[in-house]
Amino acid sequence: MEGWTVTVDRRITKKEKPNTEQLEFGRIFTDHMFIMDYMEPLGWHDARIVPYQQLTIDPSAMTFHYGQSVFEGMKAYHTDEGEIQLFRPEKNLERLNHSNDRLCIPQIDEEFVLNAIKQLVYLDKDWIPKADGTSLYIRPFIISTEPFIGVAPSHQYKLIVILSPVGSYYKEGINPVKIAVENHYVRAVKGGTGEAKTGGNYAASLKAQEKCTQNGFSQVLWLDGVEKKYIEEVGSMNVFFKINGEVVTPALNGSILEGITRNSVIQLLNHWNIPVTERKVSMEELYEAYVDGKLEEAFGSGTAAVLSPIGQLSWGDKDLFINNGKTGEVSKALYDTLTGIQYGRKTDPFNWVEKVKEVSAIKN
Amino acid sequence: MEGWTVTVDRRITKKEKPNTEQLEFGRIFTDHMFIMDYMEPLGWHDARIVPYQQLTIDPSAMTFHYGQSVFEGMKAYHTDEGEIQLFRPEKNLERLNHSNDRLCIPQIDEEFVLNAIKQLVYLDKDWIPKADGTSLYIRPFIISTEPFIGVAPSHQYKLIVILSPVGSYYKEGINPVKIAVENHYVRAVKGGTGEAKTGGNYAASLKAQEKCTQNGFSQVLWLDGVEKKYIEEVGSMNVFFKINGEVVTPALNGSILEGITRNSVIQLLNHWNIPVTERKVSMEELYEAYVDGKLEEAFGSGTAAVLSPIGQLSWGDKDLFINNGKTGEVSKALYDTLTGIQYGRKTDPFNWVEKVKEVSAIKN
Repeated sequence: MEGWTVTVDRRITKKEKPNTEQLEFGRIFTDHMFIMDYMEPLGWHDARIVPYQQLTIDPSAMTFHYGQSVFEGMKAYHTDEGEIQLFRPEKNLERLNHSNDRLCIPQIDEEFVLNAIKQLVYLDKDWIPKADGTSLYIRPFIISTEPFIGVAPSHQYKLIVILSPVGSYYKEGINPVKIAVENHYVRAVKGGTGEAKTGGNYAASLKAQEKCTQNGFSQVLWLDGVEKKYIEEVGSMNVFFKINGEVVTPALNGSILEGITRNSVIQLLNHWNIPVTERKVSMEELYEAYVDGKLEEAFGSGTAAVLSPIGQLSWGDKDLFINNGKTGEVSKALYDTLTGIQYGRKTDPFNWVEKVKEVSAIKN
Repeated sequence: MEGWTVTVDRRITKKEKPNTEQLEFGRIFTDHMFIMDYMEPLGWHDARIVPYQQLTIDPSAMTFHYGQSVFEGMKAYHTDEGEIQLFRPEKNLERLNHSNDRLCIPQIDEEFVLNAIKQLVYLDKDWIPKADGTSLYIRPFIISTEPFIGVAPSHQYKLIVILSPVGSYYKEGINPVKIAVENHYVRAVKGGTGEAKTGGNYAASLKAQEKCTQNGFSQVLWLDGVEKKYIEEVGSMNVFFKINGEVVTPALNGSILEGITRNSVIQLLNHWNIPVTERKVSMEELYEAYVDGKLEEAFGSGTAAVLSPIGQLSWGDKDLFINNGKTGEVSKALYDTLTGIQYGRKTDPFNWVEKVKEVSAIKN
């Protein structure tokens, strides 16, 4: 196979763009999408940008039956200077390949796909909203398309990238949320798929989320599937606690997703000389710290919400009110710095941002 | 909403039917399929039989991203008298609703869908192969189709039923297979989705299956995700062991699928006055029984394979050779009786089979 180029089929009639004030998360999609197919012995091939369109897929396609799929989530930001920025996108492509490995999906060429994403974002750059807190959400995903209903890795796949202009993920914005500790349902377990970004983990979370919403909470705090003792994640975010001046977050143990925002938070805290530790954290320990007046802050981290402070944590009949239900100082500093870097308003000491310029993705 | 009727759009040009001798599992599909849509506030609606065709789905449809899907598997059999039979189909529809509940998918009307399946099978009855061991595999599945990339239960679904003429699931037929005990990867854990028939459980199994195939085994034996000590399932089947005259199978614990063949095996053994117990079974116990010469038989049970004897079990550096690698007496009797009932060659003391006659599915 020769060098790869992304062919581009431009939409002639552009769709109407949404009112920036009313943007929801993930409901509106831009004019174009990227697709690339996989089939043996060709490998990944036929990389193309086409008008956003419905997929035509056989009902026996494996993705509908056996959940062999992975995805990523990242954002493009408009700077005040009119530039377009991505935040650590190479980490998303790297993680996509980690997820591929766990799900027996063939590896992608990370550099080529990243360039294809940049090409797509640049083509649809007028869709990147400019209001505060808004961005263009980028959703790469891979589905297994072989028409075969047997339990085995597929021999055919599609990698697709769609773009959605988004407001803030949480309508409450940076306001602290109420979280319920989940004691019955489990999101993932060591040896399972918890560290991969695959649909099954999210499907498994729906029932607990439904229950907690009915009880007036925003998200659940997941405990480990083995002892139901140690904290894993909050909703679909990683979680941090500031206890007696030290920030702690559950160590990556095989069932926790390796968040890119999580990693950025750790780097920022180190940069600021605020102690941060990755280790096991039990609910017991957290509750004791709370009783002793040492649980100072708590927050979730993720691409969609960036950072989401936790104001209240309910654990059985116990209620932990954190920082009087207000956003803590470290949480606020992290949010301001991360979004500041993402929107190009603060200096970027780690070279996290990548500019998107006119580009053609080519692989030789 | 008034009474439901299944509208039928018959294919004019029929597809060519496969050579019965060369039937594989799940690669060829019949002339028609059943579809029913769900949308609020309509509920399930627009039940229809249409020519087998590609689906047209938005790339943002939730099923591609968050794994909210369920499925079932059942078979239609041709009797020597030319009748068509289903095997305990009401149990599959009941289980589909259990899976729906776990995955936050709206409940279906089991009786209506079963009648629609019968109507579909009857319409495509010429596709039911007649050779020994062959059947028409029936695959009902539900996918979440709302075009929204946020983690929440979908508000739109499709229930689809496709049919596939199949040979035996295992090319080796009833010959005993080599199984490897999986010590690293986990299929499911209590509090997760193990007892639901949802894609994520199968996606989670692929990596271990790939590893065991490379090492010359047919399937893996799954251990519990908490202690990695107790036996759960084998591949995508339930598992039974005959130890010192008693048949034991892992008790349903929240992470094991409630197999319909499993239930039928238990009922048959009770009927024959062969002791059968549902309880925890550890690999340790199994190994001790083997060393003591008391591990007499082992087999998996499932719709696709019916019954699959285990001839060899590898657990780390230990190899358990069961019944000299031959199919055991009880295994053989169960296989013969189950398939005998399914194909209408043996009496059916439990009223398990249901005849498929010309029918129109109507719900008032």
